[in-house]
Amino acid sequence: MAATAPVSEPTSRISALADVLDDLAANFPNIAVLAPSVETIAYLDDAATRRARGDAASGPAVAFPATTEEVQEVVRAAARHGVTIVPRGAGTGLSGGASATAAQLVISTERLDRIVEVAPLDEVAVVEPGVLNAALNEHLAAWGLFYAPDPASYEISTIGGNVATNAGGLRCAKYGVTRESVLALDVVLADGELITVGHRSIKGVTGLDLVSLFVGSEGVLGIVVRVTVRLRPIPVARRTVSAFFDTTAAGASALSAITRSSVRPAVIEFLDGRTLANIDQHRGTDLRIRGGSLLLIELDGYGIDEQFTDLRDALEAVGGRVTQETDAAGQALWALRRGGRGFDERSWFAGGDIAVPKSRIPDVYAALPELEHRFGVEIGAVAHAGDGNLHPVITKPIPDGADPLVPPAELHEASDELARLALSLGGTVSGEHGIGTVKRELAALELSSRSREAQLAVKAAFDPFDVLNPGKAL
Amino acid sequence: MAATAPVSEPTSRISALADVLDDLAANFPNIAVLAPSVETIAYLDDAATRRARGDAASGPAVAFPATTEEVQEVVRAAARHGVTIVPRGAGTGLSGGASATAAQLVISTERLDRIVEVAPLDEVAVVEPGVLNAALNEHLAAWGLFYAPDPASYEISTIGGNVATNAGGLRCAKYGVTRESVLALDVVLADGELITVGHRSIKGVTGLDLVSLFVGSEGVLGIVVRVTVRLRPIPVARRTVSAFFDTTAAGASALSAITRSSVRPAVIEFLDGRTLANIDQHRGTDLRIRGGSLLLIELDGYGIDEQFTDLRDALEAVGGRVTQETDAAGQALWALRRGGRGFDERSWFAGGDIAVPKSRIPDVYAALPELEHRFGVEIGAVAHAGDGNLHPVITKPIPDGADPLVPPAELHEASDELARLALSLGGTVSGEHGIGTVKRELAALELSSRSREAQLAVKAAFDPFDVLNPGKAL
Repeated sequence: MAATAPVSEPTSRISALADVLDDLAANFPNIAVLAPSVETIAYLDDAATRRARGDAASGPAVAFPATTEEVQEVVRAAARHGVTIVPRGAGTGLSGGASATAAQLVISTERLDRIVEVAPLDEVAVVEPGVLNAALNEHLAAWGLFYAPDPASYEISTIGGNVATNAGGLRCAKYGVTRESVLALDVVLADGELITVGHRSIKGVTGLDLVSLFVGSEGVLGIVVRVTVRLRPIPVARRTVSAFFDTTAAGASALSAITRSSVRPAVIEFLDGRTLANIDQHRGTDLRIRGGSLLLIELDGYGIDEQFTDLRDALEAVGGRVTQETDAAGQALWALRRGGRGFDERSWFAGGDIAVPKSRIPDVYAALPELEHRFGVEIGAVAHAGDGNLHPVITKPIPDGADPLVPPAELHEASDELARLALSLGGTVSGEHGIGTVKRELAALELSSRSREAQLAVKAAFDPFDVLNPGKAL
Repeated sequence: MAATAPVSEPTSRISALADVLDDLAANFPNIAVLAPSVETIAYLDDAATRRARGDAASGPAVAFPATTEEVQEVVRAAARHGVTIVPRGAGTGLSGGASATAAQLVISTERLDRIVEVAPLDEVAVVEPGVLNAALNEHLAAWGLFYAPDPASYEISTIGGNVATNAGGLRCAKYGVTRESVLALDVVLADGELITVGHRSIKGVTGLDLVSLFVGSEGVLGIVVRVTVRLRPIPVARRTVSAFFDTTAAGASALSAITRSSVRPAVIEFLDGRTLANIDQHRGTDLRIRGGSLLLIELDGYGIDEQFTDLRDALEAVGGRVTQETDAAGQALWALRRGGRGFDERSWFAGGDIAVPKSRIPDVYAALPELEHRFGVEIGAVAHAGDGNLHPVITKPIPDGADPLVPPAELHEASDELARLALSLGGTVSGEHGIGTVKRELAALELSSRSREAQLAVKAAFDPFDVLNPGKAL
C-alpha cells in the first residue's frame, strides 16, 4: 500500500480507450458509460488501495452494462481496440483486485442488480453479480432461508465481488466459504462469449470443475454475470456466548478445547487483548475489565442448550469465564466485533489476512510481541478462529509532519514476516481477501514456480491476450 | 457399456511399452512392475466396463510405485517413450475412468497406502491415495473424528479414487462431497514434476483454486500422490428414521416437506416401489408390506429428539408412516439400502447417476413408467434425495440364448433419455460417478462447445501431449 505516484499513461493507450468509448457510443448508445474524468477517480481504487493513492487528475473509463448482452458488447469493444478491462463490484475489496489505471476500462456490475429467482424448494437463488450480499439475505428472510457467506463487508459488498474473491466471513467455519455456496455461473469470457458452468442441482461432476475455478479468480478468467447460489434454512435457534480469559495466550490456547469437544459453533471469533483495548478506547466500552482476551461465539441449530453445556464445560476447564449473553447484549458484542477496529487517522495502518492450521493460532499470537518489538509497531489481531484465519492489524502513530500516505517500511516488513510465519506453520498468505495487486509478492512466497506456471497456463487458456484484469491475482 | 471387441494394438505402441519396462528395469529396479500378460487383464477395466468386456488375451503393463519419487520416475519413463498413462486406485469406478488398453501403462496406487499423519487439533489427516476410505475412518475412530465423504464403495474404494471422481455418497447432503473435504494435494504432473496445491489451513485464496480443479479431474491433469483431508467430530448422536408412503409418487413428493422444515438430516435416501420389491425378492424381506416407497433418514448431532419431532411432524402431514428405528433395525435397513440392489445375472443392466434440483425429484419418478413402457425395460431408482442425485437402474431380462455381454439398444436409449430429462430439469448427467469413457456422449449433451473448449484448454495447459488418461472425462 505504498503511495502510488500518478503515472502518465502512454498516449496510444489513452487514445485506444477513447476509441472504445466512440465505438460504444456509435453502436451501443444504450450502454451507460463514463469517460475518464475527475468523476471516475473513485474507480481507480478499491478499499485496499484508496488510502495510498495521492492526487489523481482523472480516473479510468467506466461502463455500466445492465444486461448480459451489454457486458458482452463492452468486452468485445474493448477487445477490438486492445483495451484491458477491470471488472468491478462495489469496490470494497481489500487486495487491490478492482484497482485500475486511467487507461483501462472498468466494467461495473452496479446495474446488474436483479434477484432473478428464489426457488425455496430447490434451496437456490439466481442473482446478478451486482446484488449486495445483505440485500439478498433481506430478500430471503421471507422464505426462512439465508445465504451463508458473510464477509465483514456484507452490507456493502456484492455477490459478484464475493464470488471473485471467494469471500469468507464469520460463519464459514460451519457453513463454508463462497465456493461452497455457488452452484452455477454465467460468465462472459475475454472474447465476449458467454459460458454457463455448473448446474442447478446440488451435486454434479460432469467435466472439470470450472465453477470452482472461476470462484476466487478475481476477474482474470471472465466476468461473472449471473450466479446460482445455494441457500440454507435459517436455524431454529441462535445464541451468543462470550468467554473471557485472563490473557491473550490463555484465550488462544482455549481454541483447542472447542476442537476437542463435539460442539461446532457457527461462529468463533477471537479478540486479543490489544484489540479489546482498542475497542474500549474508541467505543467507550470496558471489555478489558471483563478479561484479557475474548472468544465470541455463536451457537445455532437444534439442541442449543446441550450445545451450550458442552461448550461451557470445555471452556471453563481451560480457565474461561463463560456467559450466555442475552439477545441485546449479544448483538452489542457482535456490533463491536464487526465495527470495532475503525480506521484511526493518526496512525499508519497495515491489515493482514493470514490463515494457519487451527492448532497453530496460539503460535501466531505468541509471535506478536517479538514482532512488535523488532519493527517498532503495534499488532493486534482478531481471528475467525474456527478456520484459523487471522486478521492482524499493524499500526504505528504518525509523527507530526510525516506523510500519512507514506507509511514506514517497518509496517510492511512486519506484515511480510507474519505471512512468512503463516507459511512456516502450514498456512497461507491470504485466507479470504485475495491477492489482487497488493499481495502479489506474498503470493510469490507461497506458490512454487511450477505452481505459478500452472496458474498462468490456466489464465492463458481462458484469456490468451491478457485482457481481463491484467496483473492481478497471479 | 457395449461389449468392447478386443482391439489389436499397433506394434509400435506395444514396443514403446516394452521400452518403458526395460527402462524401468534398468534404471529403477526397485519399482514393482507387471508386464502385459493374462495376469494384468483385470487392469483393463474398472467396475463400469468389466461386465462389458469380452475375452482378452493380455492386459496392460502395471506399475506399483511405493513412493512419490517412484511415481515421478514412472511418469518420466512413460514420457520418454511416448507411452500414455492410466492412473488407478482400486478400480471400483463406475464410469470407465480407470479402464486401459493393452498398450498403456497403468499406475496403480495400491502401494501408496500410508496414513501419514492425523492431526486432531487441526482436524486434518494426511494420507496417500491408495488408502481405503473405510480404513481411514477405522483409523480415525480412536480420535472421535471422521472423514465425511462416503461413496457406496467406501469399503473398497480409495481416497485417491474418491478425489479423482469427486465422489459423493450418502452423507454429502449435509457434509458436502469430496471437494469440500480436501484441503491440499501433492500431484505428479505429466512431465513428472511434483506440485503441491492448497494448504493445511481450512481457508485460503492464494491464486486460482487448483485443488478444486484437480478434484474430480479423473486423472487427466495429474496423479495425486498425497491428500490432506478435512476431518469432523463424530456426532454426539445418530438416529435412523424410516418413513413409508403408500406410493412412489407420495414418497417423492414428501421430500419437499423436509426442505420446508428446519431439519437437515445427514442422510436422506429415497427407495421407490420397484427398488423395495427388488430388495424383498433378493433378500427375503417384506418392505413392500410396510409401504410403496421408503424414505430412509439419518439424523445426527445435537437436539436429536427435537429434530425427530420436527421431521415426524413434517412427514406425517404428507402421509408418511414415520418410525424411529432401534439401532439394530436401523442398521438392518441401511445394510439393505447399501447392498440391496445386487447384480442379477439373468438381466441386462444399465446404471444411471443423474442429479436434478431437489424439487424436481418427483418429476423424474413420474417419468419412469412412460419410459419403461416406451423402451420395454424396468426402471427402479434410489435417490440421495438431500441433494437431488438419483441412481436409476434399468434392467431387462436376458432371453435364453442371448449374449449377456450385448445388451439391447433400448437400455442405453432409456438411460440417455433419463439424462436428457435431468438436463431439461436443470440438472446434470453425472451427479457423482464421473464421465470416464462411458458417459462422454452424455457429457456432450450437457456441456456447450465453448465450455468443452475451455475444459480442453485447461487440460492442454497441464498435459500438452495428452499423456495422462487420454480420452477420459472430457
